[in-house]
Amino acid sequence: ENNFFLIAGPCVVESEELLMEVADKVSGICKNLGIPYIFKASYRKANRTSGSSFTGLGDEVAMQLLKKTGDKYKLPVTSDIHAHEEAAIAAQYIDVLQIPAFLCRQTDLLEAAAQTGKIVNVKKGQFLSGPSMKFAAEKIRNAGNDKVILTDRGNTFGYQDLIVDYRNIPWMKEHGAPVVMDCTHSLQQPNQTSGVTGGNPQLIGTIAKAAIATGADGLFIETHPNPAVAKSDGANMLKLDQLEPLLQQLVKLRKAVV
Amino acid sequence: ENNFFLIAGPCVVESEELLMEVADKVSGICKNLGIPYIFKASYRKANRTSGSSFTGLGDEVAMQLLKKTGDKYKLPVTSDIHAHEEAAIAAQYIDVLQIPAFLCRQTDLLEAAAQTGKIVNVKKGQFLSGPSMKFAAEKIRNAGNDKVILTDRGNTFGYQDLIVDYRNIPWMKEHGAPVVMDCTHSLQQPNQTSGVTGGNPQLIGTIAKAAIATGADGLFIETHPNPAVAKSDGANMLKLDQLEPLLQQLVKLRKAVV
Amino acid sequence: ENNFFLIAGPCVVESEELLMEVADKVSGICKNLGIPYIFKASYRKANRTSGSSFTGLGDEVAMQLLKKTGDKYKLPVTSDIHAHEEAAIAAQYIDVLQIPAFLCRQTDLLEAAAQTGKIVNVKKGQFLSGPSMKFAAEKIRNAGNDKVILTDRGNTFGYQDLIVDYRNIPWMKEHGAPVVMDCTHSLQQPNQTSGVTGGNPQLIGTIAKAAIATGADGLFIETHPNPAVAKSDGANMLKLDQLEPLLQQLVKLRKAVV
Amino acid sequence: ENNFFLIAGPCVVESEELLMEVADKVSGICKNLGIPYIFKASYRKANRTSGSSFTGLGDEVAMQLLKKTGDKYKLPVTSDIHAHEEAAIAAQYIDVLQIPAFLCRQTDLLEAAAQTGKIVNVKKGQFLSGPSMKFAAEKIRNAGNDKVILTDRGNTFGYQDLIVDYRNIPWMKEHGAPVVMDCTHSLQQPNQTSGVTGGNPQLIGTIAKAAIATGADGLFIETHPNPAVAKSDGANMLKLDQLEPLLQQLVKLRKAVV
Repeated sequence: ENNFFLIAGPCVVESEELLMEVADKVSGICKNLGIPYIFKASYRKANRTSGSSFTGLGDEVAMQLLKKTGDKYKLPVTSDIHAHEEAAIAAQYIDVLQIPAFLCRQTDLLEAAAQTGKIVNVKKGQFLSGPSMKFAAEKIRNAGNDKVILTDRGNTFGYQDLIVDYRNIPWMKEHGAPVVMDCTHSLQQPNQTSGVTGGNPQLIGTIAKAAIATGADGLFIETHPNPAVAKSDGANMLKLDQLEPLLQQLVKLRKAVV
Repeated sequence: ENNFFLIAGPCVVESEELLMEVADKVSGICKNLGIPYIFKASYRKANRTSGSSFTGLGDEVAMQLLKKTGDKYKLPVTSDIHAHEEAAIAAQYIDVLQIPAFLCRQTDLLEAAAQTGKIVNVKKGQFLSGPSMKFAAEKIRNAGNDKVILTDRGNTFGYQDLIVDYRNIPWMKEHGAPVVMDCTHSLQQPNQTSGVTGGNPQLIGTIAKAAIATGADGLFIETHPNPAVAKSDGANMLKLDQLEPLLQQLVKLRKAVV
Repeated sequence: ENNFFLIAGPCVVESEELLMEVADKVSGICKNLGIPYIFKASYRKANRTSGSSFTGLGDEVAMQLLKKTGDKYKLPVTSDIHAHEEAAIAAQYIDVLQIPAFLCRQTDLLEAAAQTGKIVNVKKGQFLSGPSMKFAAEKIRNAGNDKVILTDRGNTFGYQDLIVDYRNIPWMKEHGAPVVMDCTHSLQQPNQTSGVTGGNPQLIGTIAKAAIATGADGLFIETHPNPAVAKSDGANMLKLDQLEPLLQQLVKLRKAVV
Repeated sequence: ENNFFLIAGPCVVESEELLMEVADKVSGICKNLGIPYIFKASYRKANRTSGSSFTGLGDEVAMQLLKKTGDKYKLPVTSDIHAHEEAAIAAQYIDVLQIPAFLCRQTDLLEAAAQTGKIVNVKKGQFLSGPSMKFAAEKIRNAGNDKVILTDRGNTFGYQDLIVDYRNIPWMKEHGAPVVMDCTHSLQQPNQTSGVTGGNPQLIGTIAKAAIATGADGLFIETHPNPAVAKSDGANMLKLDQLEPLLQQLVKLRKAVV
């Protein structure tokens, strides 16, 4: 029970088969390792760099698949929402509403998410400091909901790189909310001339280990059976069969920390 | 006619009196100097750092005041919009729809703005490169609207500072749209522990001169008769009575450039 | 023997008493914890921000004190050198020659240090990437010395902050040299208007834990019985009596990693 | 006499022929345009990324060629020095001693340069703010020499890019010294895996224009008849035959500023 929790799944809802395959595999691993698991997939990608990239199967269809997956494997599910009017709809299907990093300052969105009563997981903008996330947490709490999670996904470091500042973990823990490290998007290489964000998936373990060592309460890892054919973020997702050995190492590390 | 154009006004619609005072003063200055002028004020501040900051008079009221101001002084008016459903409403009152920097990757918002047929001015995210703004322009053009403006407002430089990269002016001009320098928000000092963004208004002239020298087509300058009592961005606005001497210098500089 | 090693001591040679006190205390702790220990103090501070800051007792005097300390406690000692002609002199007293971060690209200095046959510990410039440290290691090896250590001390992040990029640990390990995390200078707050660099010593543990978790071979920690009265870097040094509990935690963490 | 001054020449002393060709051409252009001209070439490159890059013809030979060039064309000459003992030697041949950016905090070097009585041009480190250059100027003045020039050459922006912060021009002018923009090295792309720094010479005009517009007193531009075959910094030097049209534009701009 002193373990970290895991938010994991494929970047986007591509198909029912994909969701079930990942949920089945990851929930089994997490059960063995005593890791509380929240299944993650986006029902829509609303801020792709390029307008021609895949954005989803349709919101309702994708949300229903998320719910079906959660029901079958008895898992809470999470997805990101992008506009205040989506909050109430998504809350019918989803247990943890995630606020995308670019939108972490949109007061309407935070308040609408808060008002659903669901857990709200706010990603720290790439342009924000950990201490500034205090104001995001306050917006949610002032809307009557104290179930807040704060997630770090790295900071802008020049145009084509992100860097993780681990000082943000203790700094954000001061805000009284669980702190998660997003080990996937922290490794993005944005602003590529191709319009497709690059990545560095071989460093997921490095990002995750430092997070556990510095006190992160949870980890966020996108995973896919075959990232090379994934419809979004293929450059950053962990290959599904590499998840278990990584989590084993991290559980061992966690025990040395707490 | 070879002059730069100006987007200027108070940060937020505080009152009818304020809008009229600023429009009267600035339109007079611009007429004398041959500067095409677009009146700017936000009808709502949707992403204040702190939930307790002023956000506006109410959208409809504020939009009507904007329109009234434009009508009286025969000026096009501009304001930022924050959600796709606001686009069509705002388009009834406003001539240039501005997309906030944090939202410049939100495809739905860009497309909804484009579909109004109005001019769309996209601010470059603090986390984005000038070359990447190609994709923002394409999203608007692919939605059937080629009236795009691209605005730079600086880049994240550590947590509490922004920096302007003037290479972005020629880089963004390659996207075939007029390029504007936002001389106000480029000087913000974000992530202050107070929850109130700081500024450096004495450097507005520096930011503006470098922009004109490097080929910017327009300038964005927030101005207020008394920034110390302004309800938003007081730390960065130019005092209204300092605008004319600055514009005189800039017009002289512009003539040496083109 | 699978433990990390420690480079620690006061920032600068202030007096014989200080060196002996620190060496006595730290060597005792390290013996208990099985941590190989290298005693560190600078004989001169050559790049203080302000010309009026303390720079040392005189090179020869300070080097002799370093040697005396090492001899008494049977510890290798290290200090930084700043010019190629210092290398051979320092090598008479010192076991590990440290190259300051600002000077890590000075070919003459690296080669002169290499030619002493001593271990050469190169600090990564705040402006350099881990992969680029390959060239520093090569300059030393090409001068006939393969006893290279590479140390990270953070990267420039805006003007007044540094950030540690833990990706540099695996990246620098690829260069075939032990990698050290400097937990003191990584927390500097440079470019203060006072001319005195600031710090964040309460985060030393965070920096150190992430380093061990991601595979660092050694840690560098400046420590002083009373940082508030130290003659250099007082803002960043760990209070001597806080070192033991920190090292205990880190040893526990290390066992979970290797 | 209100014009800016120019520091220009090839990056490194490659041969007498090269120096004479560049000095002849540039001095003619500058005479026509009323630009005070200081001839620049390095007698040694002391901090090449890779140990296998060209570093010079030998210090004495190269210094003599510099002096010969200055004498022939009646130009002051400048070069960078790298160690305190070089200062007095270089001062026999060279009129303006330049302190490299990486070394701008080395107190010994600044003081030795100051003590020659020559003009000392300190480059701002990529990791330093303009306000912090106050301390560099003070070190020189406190050594009895008030002939200080301060040069900006950009700031670290991620690993592989530099960015110029034009706020540094007014900030450094407050230190009471002429301020120069280095239009060549500001465009470097460091930390390339090849070990050879890249560049963006097509943006030299952008960097220079913004500098003149914001009040720079001088410009530094490396130029070579054929940058593609240059032995150092080929990726950033301006082709010699492009210098005259650029300077013509800049002189026009300057007149609109002062």
